[in-house]
Amino acid sequence: MNLPHLTDARAPLVREVDAVDEHGQAQRVQIPAERDLTVYVDKRELVTLMTLGARPEWLVLGYLRNQRFVTSPQHVESITVDWEVGAAAVKTRSGIDRIEERTARRVVTTGCGQGSVFGALMDDVQSIALPQARLTQAQLYALVNVIRLQESTYKSAGSVHACALFHGSQMQVFVEDVGRHNAIDTIAGWMWMHGVDTTVATPDTPYVFYTTGRLTSEMIIKSAQMGVALVVSRSGITQMGHQIAQQLGLCAIGRATNKHFLCYSAPERLLLQPELAASRLSP
Amino acid sequence: MNLPHLTDARAPLVREVDAVDEHGQAQRVQIPAERDLTVYVDKRELVTLMTLGARPEWLVLGYLRNQRFVTSPQHVESITVDWEVGAAAVKTRSGIDRIEERTARRVVTTGCGQGSVFGALMDDVQSIALPQARLTQAQLYALVNVIRLQESTYKSAGSVHACALFHGSQMQVFVEDVGRHNAIDTIAGWMWMHGVDTTVATPDTPYVFYTTGRLTSEMIIKSAQMGVALVVSRSGITQMGHQIAQQLGLCAIGRATNKHFLCYSAPERLLLQPELAASRLSP
Repeated sequence: MNLPHLTDARAPLVREVDAVDEHGQAQRVQIPAERDLTVYVDKRELVTLMTLGARPEWLVLGYLRNQRFVTSPQHVESITVDWEVGAAAVKTRSGIDRIEERTARRVVTTGCGQGSVFGALMDDVQSIALPQARLTQAQLYALVNVIRLQESTYKSAGSVHACALFHGSQMQVFVEDVGRHNAIDTIAGWMWMHGVDTTVATPDTPYVFYTTGRLTSEMIIKSAQMGVALVVSRSGITQMGHQIAQQLGLCAIGRATNKHFLCYSAPERLLLQPELAASRLSP
Repeated sequence: MNLPHLTDARAPLVREVDAVDEHGQAQRVQIPAERDLTVYVDKRELVTLMTLGARPEWLVLGYLRNQRFVTSPQHVESITVDWEVGAAAVKTRSGIDRIEERTARRVVTTGCGQGSVFGALMDDVQSIALPQARLTQAQLYALVNVIRLQESTYKSAGSVHACALFHGSQMQVFVEDVGRHNAIDTIAGWMWMHGVDTTVATPDTPYVFYTTGRLTSEMIIKSAQMGVALVVSRSGITQMGHQIAQQLGLCAIGRATNKHFLCYSAPERLLLQPELAASRLSP
Protein backbone atom coordinates (compact mmCIF):
# COMPACT_ATOMS: atom_id res chain seq x y z
CA MET A 1 0.00 0.00 0.00
CA ASN A 2 1.32 3.34 -1.13
CA LEU A 3 0.87 5.59 1.91
CA PRO A 4 1.34 9.35 1.69
CA HIS A 5 4.61 10.82 2.80
CA LEU A 6 4.04 12.99 5.86
CA THR A 7 6.31 15.46 7.59
CA ASP A 8 6.47 15.37 11.38
CA ALA A 9 6.07 19.06 12.21
CA ARG A 10 6.07 19.84 15.89
CA ALA A 11 5.27 22.90 17.91
CA PRO A 12 4.69 23.52 21.62
CA LEU A 13 1.21 22.48 22.76
CA VAL A 14 0.98 24.77 25.72
CA ARG A 15 2.11 28.25 26.51
CA GLU A 16 2.65 29.95 29.84
CA VAL A 17 0.93 33.25 30.43
CA ASP A 18 0.50 35.56 33.40
CA ALA A 19 -2.90 35.92 34.99
CA VAL A 20 -4.26 37.61 38.09
CA ASP A 21 -6.46 35.66 40.49
CA GLU A 22 -9.25 36.69 42.87
CA HIS A 23 -6.74 37.45 45.61
CA GLY A 24 -4.98 39.92 43.34
CA GLN A 25 -2.05 37.52 43.06
CA ALA A 26 -0.11 37.03 39.85
CA GLN A 27 -0.27 33.45 38.61
CA ARG A 28 1.70 31.81 35.86
CA VAL A 29 -0.75 29.49 34.10
CA GLN A 30 -0.61 27.20 31.10
CA ILE A 31 -3.00 27.67 28.21
CA PRO A 32 -3.35 25.50 25.12
CA ALA A 33 -1.76 26.58 21.88
CA GLU A 34 -4.04 27.54 19.00
CA ARG A 35 -2.59 27.93 15.54
CA ASP A 36 -3.96 28.60 12.12
CA LEU A 37 -3.04 26.03 9.53
CA THR A 38 -3.97 26.87 5.97
CA VAL A 39 -4.43 23.80 3.80
CA TYR A 40 -3.38 24.00 0.16
CA VAL A 41 -4.34 21.12 -2.13
CA ASP A 42 -2.15 21.00 -5.22
CA LYS A 43 -1.27 24.65 -4.57
CA ARG A 44 -4.92 25.70 -4.32
CA GLU A 45 -6.07 27.15 -0.96
CA LEU A 46 -8.80 24.99 0.53
CA VAL A 47 -9.42 25.97 4.15
CA THR A 48 -7.82 27.35 7.29
CA LEU A 49 -8.03 25.12 10.36
CA MET A 50 -7.50 26.43 13.89
CA THR A 51 -5.69 23.72 15.77
CA LEU A 52 -3.67 22.86 18.85
CA GLY A 53 -1.11 21.51 16.42
CA ALA A 54 -0.31 18.12 17.97
CA ARG A 55 -0.38 16.06 14.77
CA PRO A 56 -1.13 18.40 11.90
CA GLU A 57 -0.39 15.91 9.08
CA TRP A 58 -2.90 13.33 10.41
CA LEU A 59 -5.36 16.18 10.93
CA VAL A 60 -5.11 17.33 7.32
CA LEU A 61 -5.35 13.78 5.99
CA GLY A 62 -8.35 13.03 8.21
CA TYR A 63 -9.97 16.32 7.27
CA LEU A 64 -9.70 15.43 3.59
CA ARG A 65 -11.07 11.99 4.41
CA ASN A 66 -14.01 13.13 6.54
CA GLN A 67 -14.93 15.83 4.05
CA ARG A 68 -14.75 13.07 1.45
CA PHE A 69 -12.35 14.98 -0.74
CA VAL A 70 -10.30 11.80 -0.96
CA THR A 71 -11.56 8.25 -0.61
CA SER A 72 -8.25 6.48 -0.05
CA PRO A 73 -4.91 7.48 1.50
CA GLN A 74 -3.30 6.32 -1.73
CA HIS A 75 -4.76 9.34 -3.49
CA VAL A 76 -2.46 11.57 -1.46
CA GLU A 77 1.20 11.68 -2.37
CA SER A 78 2.43 13.90 0.46
CA ILE A 79 1.43 16.35 3.19
CA THR A 80 4.07 18.89 4.17
CA VAL A 81 3.40 21.04 7.20
CA ASP A 82 5.48 24.12 7.91
CA TRP A 83 4.60 25.90 11.15
CA GLU A 84 6.85 28.84 10.23
CA VAL A 85 4.25 29.89 7.68
CA GLY A 86 1.24 28.01 9.10
CA ALA A 87 0.73 26.03 5.92
CA ALA A 88 -0.01 22.43 5.00
CA ALA A 89 0.79 21.61 1.39
CA VAL A 90 -1.11 18.57 0.13
CA LYS A 91 0.06 16.94 -3.06
CA THR A 92 -2.42 14.51 -4.58
CA ARG A 93 -1.65 11.84 -7.13
CA SER A 94 -4.31 12.89 -9.59
CA GLY A 95 -6.16 15.92 -8.24
CA ILE A 96 -9.50 16.11 -6.43
CA ASP A 97 -12.60 15.68 -8.49
CA ARG A 98 -15.00 18.63 -8.68
CA ILE A 99 -13.29 20.42 -5.79
CA GLU A 100 -14.83 23.78 -6.72
CA GLU A 101 -18.35 22.50 -6.68
CA ARG A 102 -17.90 20.41 -3.56
CA THR A 103 -16.71 23.30 -1.43
CA ALA A 104 -19.57 25.53 -2.50
CA ARG A 105 -22.23 24.34 -0.08
CA ARG A 106 -21.70 25.21 3.53
CA VAL A 107 -23.20 23.81 6.68
CA VAL A 108 -22.33 25.49 9.94
CA THR A 109 -22.79 22.64 12.33
CA THR A 110 -23.35 22.67 16.03
CA GLY A 111 -20.95 24.17 18.45
CA CYS A 112 -17.92 22.06 19.00
CA GLY A 113 -19.04 19.85 16.18
CA GLN A 114 -18.45 22.72 13.88
CA GLY A 115 -18.44 24.13 10.44
CA SER A 116 -15.98 21.80 8.82
CA VAL A 117 -18.73 19.94 7.06
CA PHE A 118 -19.10 21.69 3.77
CA GLY A 119 -21.06 19.47 1.56
CA ALA A 120 -24.02 17.26 1.24
CA LEU A 121 -22.61 15.08 3.96
CA MET A 122 -25.94 14.35 5.60
CA ASP A 123 -27.47 13.32 2.30
CA ASP A 124 -26.07 9.81 2.11
CA VAL A 125 -25.57 8.96 5.74
CA GLN A 126 -28.49 6.62 5.38
CA SER A 127 -26.51 4.34 3.11
CA ILE A 128 -23.94 3.49 5.79
CA ALA A 129 -24.04 -0.08 7.12
CA LEU A 130 -22.24 -0.35 10.42
CA PRO A 131 -20.32 -3.50 11.34
CA GLN A 132 -21.50 -6.03 13.87
CA ALA A 133 -20.04 -4.85 17.14
CA ARG A 134 -20.93 -5.24 20.78
CA LEU A 135 -19.27 -3.81 23.87
CA THR A 136 -19.60 -5.19 27.37
CA GLN A 137 -20.20 -2.96 30.35
CA ALA A 138 -16.88 -4.22 31.74
CA GLN A 139 -15.08 -3.09 28.57
CA LEU A 140 -16.84 0.27 28.80
CA TYR A 141 -15.70 0.77 32.40
CA ALA A 142 -12.14 -0.26 31.49
CA LEU A 143 -12.13 2.21 28.60
CA VAL A 144 -13.38 5.09 30.75
CA ASN A 145 -10.69 4.25 33.28
CA VAL A 146 -7.95 4.36 30.64
CA ILE A 147 -9.09 7.87 29.74
CA ARG A 148 -9.10 8.90 33.39
CA LEU A 149 -5.46 7.86 33.75
CA GLN A 150 -4.28 9.41 30.48
CA GLU A 151 -1.77 12.25 30.74
CA SER A 152 -3.01 15.17 28.71
CA THR A 153 -2.80 18.80 27.73
CA TYR A 154 -6.24 19.09 29.30
CA LYS A 155 -4.82 18.22 32.69
CA SER A 156 -2.05 20.79 32.37
CA ALA A 157 -3.80 23.57 30.47
CA GLY A 158 -7.52 22.79 30.16
CA SER A 159 -9.69 24.09 27.32
CA VAL A 160 -9.06 21.26 24.88
CA HIS A 161 -11.18 18.36 23.72
CA ALA A 162 -9.92 14.80 23.56
CA CYS A 163 -10.89 11.96 21.30
CA ALA A 164 -9.58 8.42 21.39
CA LEU A 165 -10.03 5.27 19.38
CA PHE A 166 -10.33 2.03 21.30
CA HIS A 167 -10.26 -1.57 20.18
CA GLY A 168 -12.26 -3.21 22.91
CA SER A 169 -10.83 -1.52 25.98
CA GLN A 170 -7.37 -1.11 24.42
CA MET A 171 -6.60 2.47 23.50
CA GLN A 172 -5.17 2.74 19.99
CA VAL A 173 -4.66 6.48 19.72
CA PHE A 174 -5.44 9.54 21.84
CA VAL A 175 -5.68 13.01 20.33
CA GLU A 176 -6.40 16.39 21.83
CA ASP A 177 -7.24 19.60 20.04
CA VAL A 178 -8.81 22.97 20.72
CA GLY A 179 -11.61 21.76 18.44
CA ARG A 180 -12.88 18.25 18.89
CA HIS A 181 -13.79 18.06 15.18
CA ASN A 182 -10.04 18.40 14.65
CA ALA A 183 -9.39 15.64 17.17
CA ILE A 184 -11.72 13.21 15.41
CA ASP A 185 -10.31 14.19 12.00
CA THR A 186 -6.81 13.54 13.31
CA ILE A 187 -7.89 10.07 14.38
CA ALA A 188 -9.36 9.48 10.93
CA GLY A 189 -5.98 10.38 9.43
CA TRP A 190 -4.18 8.14 11.91
CA MET A 191 -6.50 5.23 10.99
CA TRP A 192 -5.62 5.57 7.33
CA MET A 193 -1.91 5.76 8.02
CA HIS A 194 -2.09 2.66 10.21
CA GLY A 195 -4.32 0.62 7.93
CA VAL A 196 -7.11 0.28 10.49
CA ASP A 197 -10.08 -1.40 8.88
CA THR A 198 -13.05 -1.21 11.20
CA THR A 199 -15.18 -3.45 9.03
CA VAL A 200 -13.12 -6.52 9.91
CA ALA A 201 -13.36 -6.04 13.66
CA THR A 202 -14.39 -9.08 15.60
CA PRO A 203 -17.80 -8.49 17.17
CA ASP A 204 -16.50 -9.00 20.69
CA THR A 205 -13.65 -6.52 20.34
CA PRO A 206 -15.36 -3.60 18.67
CA TYR A 207 -13.83 -0.31 17.69
CA VAL A 208 -15.11 2.45 19.94
CA PHE A 209 -14.72 6.21 19.74
CA TYR A 210 -14.35 8.15 22.93
CA THR A 211 -14.87 11.90 23.03
CA THR A 212 -14.94 14.41 25.85
CA GLY A 213 -17.33 16.54 23.83
CA ARG A 214 -21.03 16.34 23.17
CA LEU A 215 -22.50 13.81 20.80
CA THR A 216 -23.66 16.15 18.07
CA SER A 217 -24.86 15.14 14.64
CA GLU A 218 -21.40 15.78 13.22
CA MET A 219 -19.67 13.48 15.69
CA ILE A 220 -22.16 10.68 15.07
CA ILE A 221 -21.87 11.05 11.30
CA LYS A 222 -18.08 11.09 11.34
CA SER A 223 -17.98 8.04 13.54
CA ALA A 224 -20.36 6.19 11.24
CA GLN A 225 -18.37 7.21 8.18
CA MET A 226 -15.31 5.64 9.74
CA GLY A 227 -17.23 2.43 10.40
CA VAL A 228 -17.25 2.81 14.17
CA ALA A 229 -20.55 1.61 15.64
CA LEU A 230 -20.04 2.69 19.26
CA VAL A 231 -19.35 6.18 20.58
CA VAL A 232 -18.75 7.04 24.22
CA SER A 233 -18.79 10.54 25.65
CA ARG A 234 -18.36 12.21 28.99
CA SER A 235 -21.03 14.70 27.85
CA GLY A 236 -24.59 14.38 26.59
CA ILE A 237 -26.25 14.14 23.22
CA THR A 238 -28.13 16.60 21.04
CA GLN A 239 -31.43 15.85 19.34
CA MET A 240 -29.98 15.49 15.86
CA GLY A 241 -27.12 13.37 17.12
CA HIS A 242 -29.69 11.13 18.81
CA GLN A 243 -31.88 10.92 15.75
CA ILE A 244 -29.04 9.98 13.40
CA ALA A 245 -27.61 7.46 15.87
CA GLN A 246 -31.01 5.78 16.07
CA GLN A 247 -31.39 5.72 12.30
CA LEU A 248 -27.97 4.16 11.86
CA GLY A 249 -28.19 1.75 14.76
CA LEU A 250 -25.10 3.40 16.21
CA CYS A 251 -24.74 2.94 19.95
CA ALA A 252 -24.29 6.37 21.56
CA ILE A 253 -23.32 6.31 25.21
CA GLY A 254 -23.14 9.59 27.11
CA ARG A 255 -22.49 10.85 30.64
CA ALA A 256 -19.81 8.21 30.97
CA THR A 257 -17.85 8.96 34.13
CA ASN A 258 -16.77 6.44 36.74
CA LYS A 259 -19.54 3.86 36.75
CA HIS A 260 -22.30 6.05 35.47
CA PHE A 261 -23.49 6.21 31.87
CA LEU A 262 -26.59 6.61 29.73
CA CYS A 263 -27.02 4.54 26.59
CA TYR A 264 -29.10 6.67 24.21
CA SER A 265 -29.39 4.41 21.19
CA ALA A 266 -28.87 0.87 19.90
CA PRO A 267 -28.74 -0.68 23.40
CA GLU A 268 -28.46 -4.09 21.75
CA ARG A 269 -24.81 -3.21 21.09
CA LEU A 270 -24.11 -2.90 24.82
CA LEU A 271 -23.97 -6.05 26.92
CA LEU A 272 -25.29 -4.79 30.23
CA GLN A 273 -23.66 -6.10 33.38
CA PRO A 274 -25.56 -4.16 36.04
CA GLU A 275 -23.83 -6.15 38.78
CA LEU A 276 -20.67 -4.19 37.93
CA ALA A 277 -22.41 -0.90 38.66
CA ALA A 278 -23.29 -2.10 42.12
CA SER A 279 -19.82 -3.25 43.16
CA ARG A 280 -17.52 -0.79 44.88
CA LEU A 281 -14.31 -1.77 43.14
CA SER A 282 -13.41 -0.98 39.58
CA PRO A 283 -13.83 -3.95 37.28
CA MET B 1 -35.07 53.98 13.51
CA ASN B 2 -36.40 51.55 10.95
CA LEU B 3 -35.93 48.15 12.57
CA PRO B 4 -36.41 44.93 10.64
CA HIS B 5 -39.70 43.12 10.94
CA LEU B 6 -39.10 39.77 12.63
CA THR B 7 -41.36 36.78 13.01
CA ASP B 8 -41.49 35.08 16.41
CA ALA B 9 -41.10 31.43 15.43
CA ARG B 10 -41.10 29.01 18.33
CA ALA B 11 -40.26 25.36 18.66
CA PRO B 12 -39.67 23.08 21.65
CA LEU B 13 -36.19 23.47 23.12
CA VAL B 14 -35.95 20.05 24.67
CA ARG B 15 -37.07 16.61 23.77
CA GLU B 16 -37.59 13.56 25.92
CA VAL B 17 -35.88 10.35 24.91
CA ASP B 18 -35.44 6.92 26.45
CA ALA B 19 -32.03 5.86 27.67
CA VAL B 20 -30.66 2.91 29.61
CA ASP B 21 -28.43 3.52 32.62
CA GLU B 22 -25.62 1.50 34.23
CA HIS B 23 -28.11 -0.47 36.31
CA GLY B 24 -29.90 -1.58 33.17
CA GLN B 25 -32.82 0.67 34.06
CA ALA B 26 -34.78 2.60 31.47
CA GLN B 27 -34.61 6.35 32.04
CA ARG B 28 -36.62 9.07 30.38
CA VAL B 29 -34.18 11.96 29.88
CA GLN B 30 -34.33 15.40 28.29
CA ILE B 31 -31.95 16.33 25.51
CA PRO B 32 -31.62 19.70 23.78
CA ALA B 33 -33.23 20.25 20.41
CA GLU B 34 -30.97 20.77 17.40
CA ARG B 35 -32.44 22.05 14.16
CA ASP B 36 -31.08 23.05 10.82
CA LEU B 37 -32.00 26.53 9.73
CA THR B 38 -31.10 27.47 6.18
CA VAL B 39 -30.65 31.18 5.71
CA TYR B 40 -31.72 32.72 2.41
CA VAL B 41 -30.78 36.33 1.72
CA ASP B 42 -32.97 37.88 -0.94
CA LYS B 43 -33.87 34.34 -2.08
CA ARG B 44 -30.22 33.30 -2.35
CA GLU B 45 -29.05 30.46 -0.08
CA LEU B 46 -26.31 31.68 2.24
CA VAL B 47 -25.67 29.11 4.97
CA THR B 48 -27.25 26.42 7.12
CA LEU B 49 -27.03 26.95 10.87
CA MET B 50 -27.54 24.14 13.36
CA THR B 51 -29.33 25.66 16.32
CA LEU B 52 -31.32 24.98 19.46
CA GLY B 53 -33.91 27.30 17.96
CA ALA B 54 -34.68 29.57 20.91
CA ARG B 55 -34.62 32.90 19.04
CA PRO B 56 -33.89 32.16 15.40
CA GLU B 57 -34.63 35.69 14.10
CA TRP B 58 -32.12 37.32 16.45
CA LEU B 59 -29.67 34.57 15.56
CA VAL B 60 -29.94 35.25 11.84
CA LEU B 61 -29.71 39.03 12.33
CA GLY B 62 -26.69 38.65 14.62
CA TYR B 63 -25.09 36.19 12.24
CA LEU B 64 -25.37 38.70 9.40
CA ARG B 65 -23.98 41.35 11.74
CA ASN B 66 -21.04 39.34 13.06
CA GLN B 67 -20.16 38.14 9.58
CA ARG B 68 -20.34 41.79 8.59
CA PHE B 69 -22.74 41.13 5.77
CA VAL B 70 -24.80 44.03 7.07
CA THR B 71 -23.52 47.02 9.02
CA SER B 72 -26.83 48.30 10.37
CA PRO B 73 -30.17 46.68 11.29
CA GLN B 74 -31.78 49.22 8.98
CA HIS B 75 -30.34 47.38 6.01
CA VAL B 76 -32.64 44.45 6.78
CA GLU B 77 -36.31 44.77 5.95
CA SER B 78 -37.53 41.49 7.41
CA ILE B 79 -36.51 38.06 8.69
CA THR B 80 -39.14 35.36 8.37
CA VAL B 81 -38.46 32.03 10.05
CA ASP B 82 -40.54 28.97 9.25
CA TRP B 83 -39.65 25.88 11.28
CA GLU B 84 -41.90 23.72 9.09
CA VAL B 85 -39.33 23.99 6.34
CA GLY B 86 -36.31 24.99 8.45
CA ALA B 87 -35.80 28.22 6.58
CA ALA B 88 -35.06 31.84 7.44
CA ALA B 89 -35.88 34.25 4.64
CA VAL B 90 -33.98 37.51 4.93
CA LYS B 91 -35.17 40.45 2.88
CA THR B 92 -32.69 43.31 2.64
CA ARG B 93 -33.48 46.87 1.65
CA SER B 94 -30.84 47.09 -1.02
CA GLY B 95 -28.98 43.78 -1.25
CA ILE B 96 -25.63 42.77 0.23
CA ASP B 97 -22.55 44.12 -1.42
CA ARG B 98 -20.16 41.62 -2.99
CA ILE B 99 -21.85 38.68 -1.24
CA GLU B 100 -20.33 36.14 -3.65
CA GLU B 101 -16.80 37.27 -3.05
CA ARG B 102 -17.22 37.65 0.70
CA THR B 103 -18.41 34.09 1.25
CA ALA B 104 -15.57 32.62 -0.78
CA ARG B 105 -12.89 32.56 1.90
CA ARG B 106 -13.39 30.10 4.69
CA VAL B 107 -11.88 29.88 8.12
CA VAL B 108 -12.74 26.86 10.21
CA THR B 109 -12.26 28.27 13.67
CA THR B 110 -11.69 26.51 16.92
CA GLY B 111 -14.09 24.03 18.34
CA CYS B 112 -17.11 25.64 19.86
CA GLY B 113 -15.99 28.92 18.36
CA GLN B 114 -16.64 27.47 15.00
CA GLY B 115 -16.62 27.88 11.30
CA SER B 116 -19.07 30.68 10.98
CA VAL B 117 -16.33 33.16 10.30
CA PHE B 118 -15.98 33.17 6.56
CA GLY B 119 -14.04 36.14 5.63
CA ALA B 120 -11.08 38.24 6.36
CA LEU B 121 -12.46 38.88 9.81
CA MET B 122 -9.13 38.74 11.56
CA ASP B 123 -7.62 41.19 9.13
CA ASP B 124 -9.04 44.37 10.59
CA VAL B 125 -9.53 43.42 14.21
CA GLN B 126 -6.59 45.66 14.96
CA SER B 127 -8.59 48.73 14.04
CA ILE B 128 -11.15 48.23 16.82
CA ALA B 129 -11.03 50.76 19.64
CA LEU B 130 -12.81 49.44 22.72
CA PRO B 131 -14.72 51.80 25.00
CA GLN B 132 -13.52 52.86 28.42
CA ALA B 133 -14.95 50.29 30.78
CA ARG B 134 -14.02 48.94 34.16
CA LEU B 135 -15.66 46.22 36.23
CA THR B 136 -15.29 45.80 39.97
CA GLN B 137 -14.65 42.44 41.57
CA ALA B 138 -17.98 42.89 43.40
CA GLN B 139 -19.80 43.38 40.09
CA LEU B 140 -18.05 40.31 38.70
CA TYR B 141 -19.17 38.19 41.65
CA ALA B 142 -22.74 39.49 41.37
CA LEU B 143 -22.78 38.66 37.67
CA VAL B 144 -21.51 35.12 38.20
CA ASN B 145 -24.17 34.67 40.86
CA VAL B 146 -26.94 35.80 38.50
CA ILE B 147 -25.81 33.13 36.03
CA ARG B 148 -25.77 30.53 38.78
CA LEU B 149 -29.41 31.25 39.62
CA GLN B 150 -30.61 31.41 36.00
CA GLU B 151 -33.12 28.78 34.93
CA SER B 152 -31.90 27.15 31.77
CA THR B 153 -32.13 24.41 29.21
CA TYR B 154 -28.66 23.42 30.44
CA LYS B 155 -30.08 22.60 33.86
CA SER B 156 -32.86 20.48 32.38
CA ALA B 157 -31.12 18.90 29.40
CA GLY B 158 -27.40 19.75 29.47
CA SER B 159 -25.27 19.92 26.35
CA VAL B 160 -25.89 23.56 25.50
CA HIS B 161 -23.77 26.68 25.81
CA ALA B 162 -25.03 29.88 27.34
CA CYS B 163 -24.07 33.48 26.65
CA ALA B 164 -25.38 36.55 28.40
CA LEU B 165 -24.95 40.28 28.09
CA PHE B 166 -24.62 42.24 31.31
CA HIS B 167 -24.69 45.95 32.00
CA GLY B 168 -22.68 46.14 35.17
CA SER B 169 -24.09 43.19 37.10
CA GLN B 170 -27.57 43.54 35.55
CA MET B 171 -28.33 40.80 33.08
CA GLN B 172 -29.80 42.20 29.86
CA VAL B 173 -30.31 39.03 27.87
CA PHE B 174 -29.51 35.34 28.32
CA VAL B 175 -29.29 32.98 25.35
CA GLU B 176 -28.56 29.28 25.10
CA ASP B 177 -27.74 27.30 22.00
CA VAL B 178 -26.18 24.01 21.01
CA GLY B 179 -23.38 26.13 19.55
CA ARG B 180 -22.11 29.04 21.58
CA HIS B 181 -21.21 30.93 18.40
CA ASN B 182 -24.97 30.89 17.79
CA ALA B 183 -25.59 32.15 21.31
CA ILE B 184 -23.28 35.12 20.86
CA ASP B 185 -24.71 35.85 17.41
CA THR B 186 -28.20 35.80 18.89
CA ILE B 187 -27.10 38.37 21.46
CA ALA B 188 -25.67 40.52 18.66
CA GLY B 189 -29.05 40.41 16.94
CA TRP B 190 -30.83 41.24 20.19
CA MET B 191 -28.52 44.23 20.72
CA TRP B 192 -29.41 45.65 17.34
CA MET B 193 -33.13 45.15 17.88
CA HIS B 194 -32.94 46.85 21.27
CA GLY B 195 -30.72 49.72 20.19
CA VAL B 196 -27.93 48.84 22.60
CA ASP B 197 -24.95 51.08 21.92
CA THR B 198 -21.97 49.83 23.88
CA THR B 199 -19.87 52.84 22.98
CA VAL B 200 -21.92 55.13 25.20
CA ALA B 201 -21.69 52.97 28.30
CA THR B 202 -20.60 54.76 31.42
CA PRO B 203 -17.17 53.50 32.49
CA ASP B 204 -18.44 52.29 35.88
CA THR B 205 -21.30 50.27 34.42
CA PRO B 206 -19.61 48.45 31.58
CA TYR B 207 -21.15 46.01 29.20
CA VAL B 208 -19.85 42.52 29.88
CA PHE B 209 -20.24 39.29 27.95
CA TYR B 210 -20.59 36.08 29.86
CA THR B 211 -20.09 32.71 28.19
CA THR B 212 -19.99 29.17 29.51
CA GLY B 213 -17.62 28.23 26.70
CA ARG B 214 -13.93 28.73 26.19
CA LEU B 215 -12.47 32.09 25.28
CA THR B 216 -11.33 31.29 21.76
CA SER B 217 -10.16 33.79 19.20
CA GLU B 218 -13.62 33.89 17.67
CA MET B 219 -15.34 34.76 20.93
CA ILE B 220 -12.84 37.52 21.68
CA ILE B 221 -13.16 38.95 18.18
CA LYS B 222 -16.96 38.89 18.22
CA SER B 223 -17.04 40.57 21.59
CA ALA B 224 -14.66 43.28 20.39
CA GLN B 225 -16.69 43.81 17.23
CA MET B 226 -19.74 44.48 19.37
CA GLY B 227 -17.81 46.99 21.43
CA VAL B 228 -17.76 44.90 24.60
CA ALA B 229 -14.44 45.28 26.43
CA LEU B 230 -14.93 42.63 29.12
CA VAL B 231 -15.61 38.92 28.66
CA VAL B 232 -16.19 36.46 31.47
CA SER B 233 -16.14 32.70 31.11
CA ARG B 234 -16.54 29.66 33.29
CA SER B 235 -13.89 28.00 31.10
CA GLY B 236 -10.35 28.88 30.12
CA ILE B 237 -8.71 30.68 27.24
CA THR B 238 -6.84 29.52 24.16
CA GLN B 239 -3.56 30.98 22.98
CA MET B 240 -5.03 32.92 20.08
CA GLY B 241 -7.88 34.20 22.20
CA HIS B 242 -5.30 35.39 24.71
CA GLN B 243 -3.13 37.01 22.09
CA ILE B 244 -5.97 38.94 20.48
CA ALA B 245 -7.40 40.01 23.85
CA GLN B 246 -4.00 41.41 24.79
CA GLN B 247 -3.63 43.22 21.47
CA LEU B 248 -7.06 44.80 21.83
CA GLY B 249 -6.80 45.58 25.53
CA LEU B 250 -9.89 43.44 26.06
CA CYS B 251 -10.24 42.10 29.58
CA ALA B 252 -10.66 38.32 29.40
CA ILE B 253 -11.61 36.66 32.66
CA GLY B 254 -11.78 32.87 32.81
CA ARG B 255 -12.41 30.09 35.35
CA ALA B 256 -15.09 32.27 36.90
CA THR B 257 -17.02 30.13 39.36
CA ASN B 258 -18.08 31.13 42.84
CA LYS B 259 -15.31 33.42 44.03
CA HIS B 260 -12.56 32.09 41.85
CA PHE B 261 -11.39 33.63 38.59
CA LEU B 262 -8.30 34.28 36.49
CA CYS B 263 -7.90 37.57 34.68
CA TYR B 264 -5.84 36.82 31.58
CA SER B 265 -5.56 40.23 29.96
CA ALA B 266 -6.09 43.95 30.48
CA PRO B 267 -6.21 43.68 34.28
CA GLU B 268 -6.48 47.47 34.42
CA ARG B 269 -10.13 47.00 33.45
CA LEU B 270 -10.81 44.99 36.61
CA LEU B 271 -10.92 46.79 39.95
CA LEU B 272 -9.59 44.13 42.28
CA GLN B 273 -11.18 43.81 45.69
CA PRO B 274 -9.26 40.86 47.13
CA GLU B 275 -10.97 41.32 50.48
CA LEU B 276 -14.15 40.00 48.83
CA ALA B 277 -12.41 36.74 47.93
CA ALA B 278 -11.50 36.17 51.54
CA SER B 279 -14.98 36.65 53.00
CA ARG B 280 -17.23 33.67 53.36
CA LEU B 281 -20.48 35.30 52.35
CA SER B 282 -21.41 36.29 48.84
CA PRO B 283 -21.06 40.02 48.21
